Amino acid sequence: MASLHFPAGFSFTCSYSREQKLRIKVGAFSRISTAKVSGKIPRTAICKYRRMVSAESLAELGSITKTRTRQNIPTKKQLIDSFRRGIIVQGGVGYRQTVVIRSCEIGADKTATLESLLNLLQETALNHVWISGLLGDGFGATHGMIRNNLIWVVTRMQLQVDQYPTWGEVVEVDTWVGASGKNGMRRDWLIRSHVTGLVYVRATSTWVMMNQKTRRLSKMPEEVRAEISPWFIEKNAIQENTPETIKKLDNTVKYINSKLKPKRTDLDMNNHVNNVKYVNWMLEAIPEIFLEGYQLFSMTLEYRRECGSSDTVQSLCQPDEDGAFQDEVQDDNGKTHKEQSQVSELEGDASSSGSPLSFTHLLQMTGDSKTDEIVRGRTTWKRKPWLFH
Amino acid sequence: MASLHFPAGFSFTCSYSREQKLRIKVGAFSRISTAKVSGKIPRTAICKYRRMVSAESLAELGSITKTRTRQNIPTKKQLIDSFRRGIIVQGGVGYRQTVVIRSCEIGADKTATLESLLNLLQETALNHVWISGLLGDGFGATHGMIRNNLIWVVTRMQLQVDQYPTWGEVVEVDTWVGASGKNGMRRDWLIRSHVTGLVYVRATSTWVMMNQKTRRLSKMPEEVRAEISPWFIEKNAIQENTPETIKKLDNTVKYINSKLKPKRTDLDMNNHVNNVKYVNWMLEAIPEIFLEGYQLFSMTLEYRRECGSSDTVQSLCQPDEDGAFQDEVQDDNGKTHKEQSQVSELEGDASSSGSPLSFTHLLQMTGDSKTDEIVRGRTTWKRKPWLFH
Repeated sequence: MASLHFPAGFSFTCSYSREQKLRIKVGAFSRISTAKVSGKIPRTAICKYRRMVSAESLAELGSITKTRTRQNIPTKKQLIDSFRRGIIVQGGVGYRQTVVIRSCEIGADKTATLESLLNLLQETALNHVWISGLLGDGFGATHGMIRNNLIWVVTRMQLQVDQYPTWGEVVEVDTWVGASGKNGMRRDWLIRSHVTGLVYVRATSTWVMMNQKTRRLSKMPEEVRAEISPWFIEKNAIQENTPETIKKLDNTVKYINSKLKPKRTDLDMNNHVNNVKYVNWMLEAIPEIFLEGYQLFSMTLEYRRECGSSDTVQSLCQPDEDGAFQDEVQDDNGKTHKEQSQVSELEGDASSSGSPLSFTHLLQMTGDSKTDEIVRGRTTWKRKPWLFH
Repeated sequence: MASLHFPAGFSFTCSYSREQKLRIKVGAFSRISTAKVSGKIPRTAICKYRRMVSAESLAELGSITKTRTRQNIPTKKQLIDSFRRGIIVQGGVGYRQTVVIRSCEIGADKTATLESLLNLLQETALNHVWISGLLGDGFGATHGMIRNNLIWVVTRMQLQVDQYPTWGEVVEVDTWVGASGKNGMRRDWLIRSHVTGLVYVRATSTWVMMNQKTRRLSKMPEEVRAEISPWFIEKNAIQENTPETIKKLDNTVKYINSKLKPKRTDLDMNNHVNNVKYVNWMLEAIPEIFLEGYQLFSMTLEYRRECGSSDTVQSLCQPDEDGAFQDEVQDDNGKTHKEQSQVSELEGDASSSGSPLSFTHLLQMTGDSKTDEIVRGRTTWKRKPWLFH
């Protein structure tokens, strides 16, 4: 029987090591991505948050007591998970879960929020590992990874939302994995309408492994490759010709949100800021007036280092091409051409063109580690469909 | 066939009217609760947030387009909802849903967060209305209520958590409704382990109706009573001898969090602050050092008025009986007696007594409407079980 193994999906739960070079072969095109991931934590911050670290170790302690242990983890591959309405598909290697959009997952327009979609991606990725029988303790690491002290690190995430599912709507989330270069893994997702089969959301992500003790990125051990590779398939949820390079922003950008601090409720089981929070911080830098009229169409994130409970963060945001922007749109005949719009649309006086507007984003540390990048991002936006008429 | 009707559960989506007296007969004991619910919104705030109101009406507009409409709402009572794993129980009037605790619902200790438990209560309440065939558009109002322009308003909520379910655990959420005085309704919940049947969470809430146009509380119309009353049962998830009266705090309290502002992502479909956010604000006033060692055991909330997107809020919090506290605990023989502990435990040097500590809370408006109370609350806390050893 083939063995299975995947990352936690979207949330990553480890810190990059100090002054470490991040070199990963990404996907089929073997692009070398280098990111300096330095993190000097001021001594005062360490003292101040000593108790947070203590809480983390207590949580670990807790996990060995009877009531704290995660329940119902199969040790062999299952074909069906009736409680979660999950099944193995795609010739035995993909996972599909049927979910109903909950009331707490919708926003003011009664459709699923971006945050809830990202949570669904994370949840189904973990459930894919769960149903495989390979899930160990922790956030998606397999037995082989645990034996090698390895955890997953996400380096890139790309998402495209053609339609936001509505409150109470039944959707199917498909997820599968593939190779990404020599030592990486790709995880893709599709979210579809259960009734029509129409694809609502496409997403892809790239993952590498890190040694939990040395905090250094690791090659994929043969033992782990043997677990994972039988589950790899050649199928992409999003077709990319050339991966977009996201430029680094500086403090001359149009919009800055400073002094962002993680709250207790933003932290995950490793006492790190949850990934979904990063996205919220990124989007909160965009003016409210814009968010009222537009909804996110696509998002690309490049992760550089993670953010702990004691860090202060600033969110930089720059609309494309000061004064005007260009973006590729498809006409009715499927042909791609450039369309130009005025950024005056940003000021709330948008026409109903429906063509996407774009922003570049950067989350970075403030204070002593001011130059440390956490995430670079690109977002494109579409006019909300019900505002056309 | 009996007809069914309930509130949205926990989240309420309307504002109390200005200078309105709130008189409700609560539960079996017909206590008269009076709360002055005044709300003067400064003109500048109205201007500043004109666009938020505009967004709300746009969302309403959106709900009439095809893609925005909530799907799969049955017009007749169903006995089973296979997509949500929900069934009708308790002689045809109660609802039970089996859910698996998701990865995004857990905190640092890998158990469900209070927020996720509150979301589950809301979700199952709405699904109870859904399966009844009585759900109209909006947040849990029935067809009869919609014809009468009525919406639900929660006035009281009480919760007790004996054990927090763990990540991946399968739990059953039972919910049902009963009469509360002449014009009110009670909604109760039990969350149980699917494997052992052990009760983890008990909750009860009290609801009244408000006219959406006049913003005044309303008697229950006969038409609505005919919908609801066949579903009422005499069963209480939490037994209360005498409902606790929560005293009003003032600015002399030990802990204050000021200038709390709702973010875009905190707003519900009516552009009002989500109830779960209230609870987070309440708990954020408690020192971090305390929250590391303790978990919430019980919570009582008295709602006075709701908070809109333009309001600024402060969260007041006072530990019980300066220096010491008393609380009722049950010994091994089931006998109730008073136990006294030192508040020195609050300073992080707690013994392993396991007896609950208590806080009184108040969320209130700041600025022009400084005296406006939003929620009064009481919480009790237990030492985290894995810290005993």
